[in-house]
Amino acid sequence: MPTYKAPTREYGFLLHELLDLSRFSNLPGFAEATPDLLDQIMEQAAKFTEEVLQPLNKVGDEQGCTLKDGEVTTPDGFADAYKQLVDGGWPALVCDPDYGGQGLPNTVGVLFNEMVSSANMAFGMYPGLSHGAYSALIHHGSDEQKDMYLPKLVSGEWTGTMNLTEPHCGTDLGLLRSKAVPDGDGSYAISGQKIWISAGEHSMSDNIIHLVLARIEGAPEGVGGISLFIVPKFLVNDDGSLGERNTLQCGGLEEKMGIHGNATCVMNYDGAKGWLVGEENKGLRAMFTMMNEARLGVGLQGISQSEVAYQNARDFALERIQGRALTGPKNEDGPADPIIVHPDVRRMLLNVRTFNEGARALLVWTALWGDLAEKAEDEETRQKADDLMGLMTPILKGYCTDKGFANAVESQQVYGGSGYTREWGAEQFVRDARIAMIYEGTNGIQALDLVGRKLAANGGRAVFTFFKEVDDFIAANKDDETLAEIIAPLGVARKQLEEATMWFMENALKNPDHAGAGAADYLHLFALTAIGLMWGQMAKIAHQRLAGDAAGDAFYETKLVTARYFVNRMLPQAATHLAAIKAGADDVMALTADAF
Amino acid sequence: MPTYKAPTREYGFLLHELLDLSRFSNLPGFAEATPDLLDQIMEQAAKFTEEVLQPLNKVGDEQGCTLKDGEVTTPDGFADAYKQLVDGGWPALVCDPDYGGQGLPNTVGVLFNEMVSSANMAFGMYPGLSHGAYSALIHHGSDEQKDMYLPKLVSGEWTGTMNLTEPHCGTDLGLLRSKAVPDGDGSYAISGQKIWISAGEHSMSDNIIHLVLARIEGAPEGVGGISLFIVPKFLVNDDGSLGERNTLQCGGLEEKMGIHGNATCVMNYDGAKGWLVGEENKGLRAMFTMMNEARLGVGLQGISQSEVAYQNARDFALERIQGRALTGPKNEDGPADPIIVHPDVRRMLLNVRTFNEGARALLVWTALWGDLAEKAEDEETRQKADDLMGLMTPILKGYCTDKGFANAVESQQVYGGSGYTREWGAEQFVRDARIAMIYEGTNGIQALDLVGRKLAANGGRAVFTFFKEVDDFIAANKDDETLAEIIAPLGVARKQLEEATMWFMENALKNPDHAGAGAADYLHLFALTAIGLMWGQMAKIAHQRLAGDAAGDAFYETKLVTARYFVNRMLPQAATHLAAIKAGADDVMALTADAF
Repeated sequence: MPTYKAPTREYGFLLHELLDLSRFSNLPGFAEATPDLLDQIMEQAAKFTEEVLQPLNKVGDEQGCTLKDGEVTTPDGFADAYKQLVDGGWPALVCDPDYGGQGLPNTVGVLFNEMVSSANMAFGMYPGLSHGAYSALIHHGSDEQKDMYLPKLVSGEWTGTMNLTEPHCGTDLGLLRSKAVPDGDGSYAISGQKIWISAGEHSMSDNIIHLVLARIEGAPEGVGGISLFIVPKFLVNDDGSLGERNTLQCGGLEEKMGIHGNATCVMNYDGAKGWLVGEENKGLRAMFTMMNEARLGVGLQGISQSEVAYQNARDFALERIQGRALTGPKNEDGPADPIIVHPDVRRMLLNVRTFNEGARALLVWTALWGDLAEKAEDEETRQKADDLMGLMTPILKGYCTDKGFANAVESQQVYGGSGYTREWGAEQFVRDARIAMIYEGTNGIQALDLVGRKLAANGGRAVFTFFKEVDDFIAANKDDETLAEIIAPLGVARKQLEEATMWFMENALKNPDHAGAGAADYLHLFALTAIGLMWGQMAKIAHQRLAGDAAGDAFYETKLVTARYFVNRMLPQAATHLAAIKAGADDVMALTADAF
Repeated sequence: MPTYKAPTREYGFLLHELLDLSRFSNLPGFAEATPDLLDQIMEQAAKFTEEVLQPLNKVGDEQGCTLKDGEVTTPDGFADAYKQLVDGGWPALVCDPDYGGQGLPNTVGVLFNEMVSSANMAFGMYPGLSHGAYSALIHHGSDEQKDMYLPKLVSGEWTGTMNLTEPHCGTDLGLLRSKAVPDGDGSYAISGQKIWISAGEHSMSDNIIHLVLARIEGAPEGVGGISLFIVPKFLVNDDGSLGERNTLQCGGLEEKMGIHGNATCVMNYDGAKGWLVGEENKGLRAMFTMMNEARLGVGLQGISQSEVAYQNARDFALERIQGRALTGPKNEDGPADPIIVHPDVRRMLLNVRTFNEGARALLVWTALWGDLAEKAEDEETRQKADDLMGLMTPILKGYCTDKGFANAVESQQVYGGSGYTREWGAEQFVRDARIAMIYEGTNGIQALDLVGRKLAANGGRAVFTFFKEVDDFIAANKDDETLAEIIAPLGVARKQLEEATMWFMENALKNPDHAGAGAADYLHLFALTAIGLMWGQMAKIAHQRLAGDAAGDAFYETKLVTARYFVNRMLPQAATHLAAIKAGADDVMALTADAF
């Protein structure tokens, strides 16, 4: 049976050393987030996720959800675990204190979310989607709507969903057909079918607040005619009590490759009562607020599966006795050596681990910019933070889920034949991780968002801001001999990223297909460089600590090894991506459709 | 529902143009293999696999196999399909005419096997394992054993299995414990438990011939004490009729990630009657005969899943309407364009397709060397052929299954959300393809076989033979301007492969961990270069044909595009692999086991 242990030592390193959150104690939410409090929260969260959520992961996979007469039954134990989640106050962690939240920085929240997702990704989607609904409402809802819905979403008594996709439109929301007809009383009658609605129906919470994209009668075609609606499962009376059942129903559950514990619903809206959020025809903008945050959360899911897959593969490699080390027996009294002695097994484990630590660093670094974009005192910092957050969001979503899946596969490979059997659980991580490359915008869409939107926005301001971060780090440490082994390869990757960026600027205007054909490679090249920067910063801290009060501490010694491994073994992939980008679109576009 | 169409046009190109089998009409088996006959066989095979086997692929996945009272029930339709396979004479295709075979070259057989596996990988394993048993017996069995077992294995009336793995030993066969006690009548009593035995029990054939590795009482420990035994499910009387049931039983079915249609059995041998194959304690040698062929077959499974995944993803991309081309609408009358207009969708499809065609070319090229190793008239050619066949076997097994799986994933990505649902079938290809990276020796073991055994054997003779093939091609075409765009990048990859080879020669003797740490990357680097050579040869033929009788033929025009795509987009990965190899083992081996 697989296990999970939250990497709290790593979390402490990130929060207190890499990010040093105490620097921001002048900002709301950060003031309360003292190192001691954060450590306590992390410990409690570790206990909850390890002991309550993780044991239900296999149960959820095996039982899945069942639909009968419109009611969805979640796997055994899920409802009780959800109750414990609510009782522990976890849904409120990073929410606005005005609505009952604890107001902690999202930088902290993402680590809690990682733990939940590592322990039980399918379960984590129930509160995850609720938080998406919370975000959309707090940014775009009216005061009345906020007062009515947010306290219960914050407490977790109610959950939320996002309803975008329809059978004929997923990526291209401009095609959506669900319609909204004014009822004359300020509400709308919503009709249409939505598919792939995660957490769409269940009875773990008292109510489900569906956020639904629909087209108001007579609205323009395309994305400019889409509005966002609150469509609750149960109507809410003025006193906050629940009224009648709305005319919406789960019409079916998708049979999926994984995340069986989550109810992925076909939702049928049959003149259901809904209320407009924000302005008419501006629904997509409101939904994007929700999606940007959700995209970071999905990137995190990639890391979460990679982390738990790593832990279990490592345990297997330490215990499985098979063959002898190439350099002679290491376990002479036993019939064979543990397979951790084999360089190829270590290579697989280190590929996964150096991603986990590097990508997690990049994700919390980005989450901190996200917090600063809202909370920093000066406009310049907020601007910079918003630029970096917006730039890194598609990169983290795309890269962390591509790699999260690939790493679940790599971890599964460590087991040999056992990895293919259901018994060991490694294959569940693979099946679960796979969805993250697809939902919240496929990774191809992320890549297009990066090269088509984020790269070009404001004359490339965000990208130049990122380059400056790298250049500042390199310049500040160029005389540090101990860091040279990291900084030199980081500098190479940075140059390759610049070369790719310039290539797009020169060629994509002439032919946008050049951007499309290189987008996915550019996203990976960017991520590698950014994670290289993280490893540089982490290695610097490790050197400082080892030279000081933490001399001989294995944690920091290991960080130096993994930093070297990343820059020597992973970062050179940048060259391949650059070559693919510069190959351009000609061969990609040459064939007519019928030649495929 | 997924579909499958055998790529017979491609097969004809490979057999008649790339390999030009008619060159070898002086050799046994080749004489009969006229182009007309081969085309007829391919057409019949296409019909059988498309119409009979493919529709059962999803059935097999959904129903799986069930075990009751020691009897295994295969999915609906499998038994009838197996009967049709036998009635069609397909199991005899490449077998020895002395035992009822048709004696065709294996070069032809591998293409038949690809079709079977594309249509239904789980089904294909039943005859696939039988052929493995056939190979071991024809090379190592006594005349009496051959007469008794081969005709029925060749006809397919009986099937066969390979029994290697035990719960505590998979890769490290030296640890195996199953024992064989002489019965005094020339037979042995075999006892022990074997796991992951594909096609271990079923009732589609009249008898199952298990080939079992076991240790004769008193034999030395380790791999030098292992013998191979024939252990039939039903004992065979002298007149060839079936006698009593042997004391062996399927004790359980593995619950797996995929290939549910194949019965993966725990086999319990309880003093079962068995007969020694070949010499005592030389069982591993006999098993390796079987495994080398099996490894090529597993590489083929990778290609097979990549091919069928490609076909279905392409069909989806041609039909799914979503978004607009970056360069303006291509389907102006429709609400959106088919997604094949998007460069990123084309990139994914071309990644898969250029592998399919290039890797298949390499596989049949290698299979031809395999045929020549047995049948060529002069010793020098047989030697060269055997060298190349032995060298390419781990490369094809490792690379084609790594990529076969990755390509099933890439194809699944083309579907967006639909790819994650069971309905569309893309996720089954992913789950099925995954096993091929693991069984018949994990890909890590293939890489070690390559760098530890094949590279060093006979002073590197096989590798130098390969380099000469590349160099001869480059030299012969260096003045051909139309080929320069292919030959230049091929030359770069060839140099990188040479550099990696030299690096191993210089460093791995000092520290074998350097070979182990770089083995997987070396395998990929080697495969890329070899497939680059294939694309060079295919492009050359395409140019010749287009300049001659096939001017304007879209098949050859497309070949030139895909050749360019491969060398410009895929071949540059060689640089990354070289960098990883030259990074060496130091960072890989630096951590103590408990630091993982």
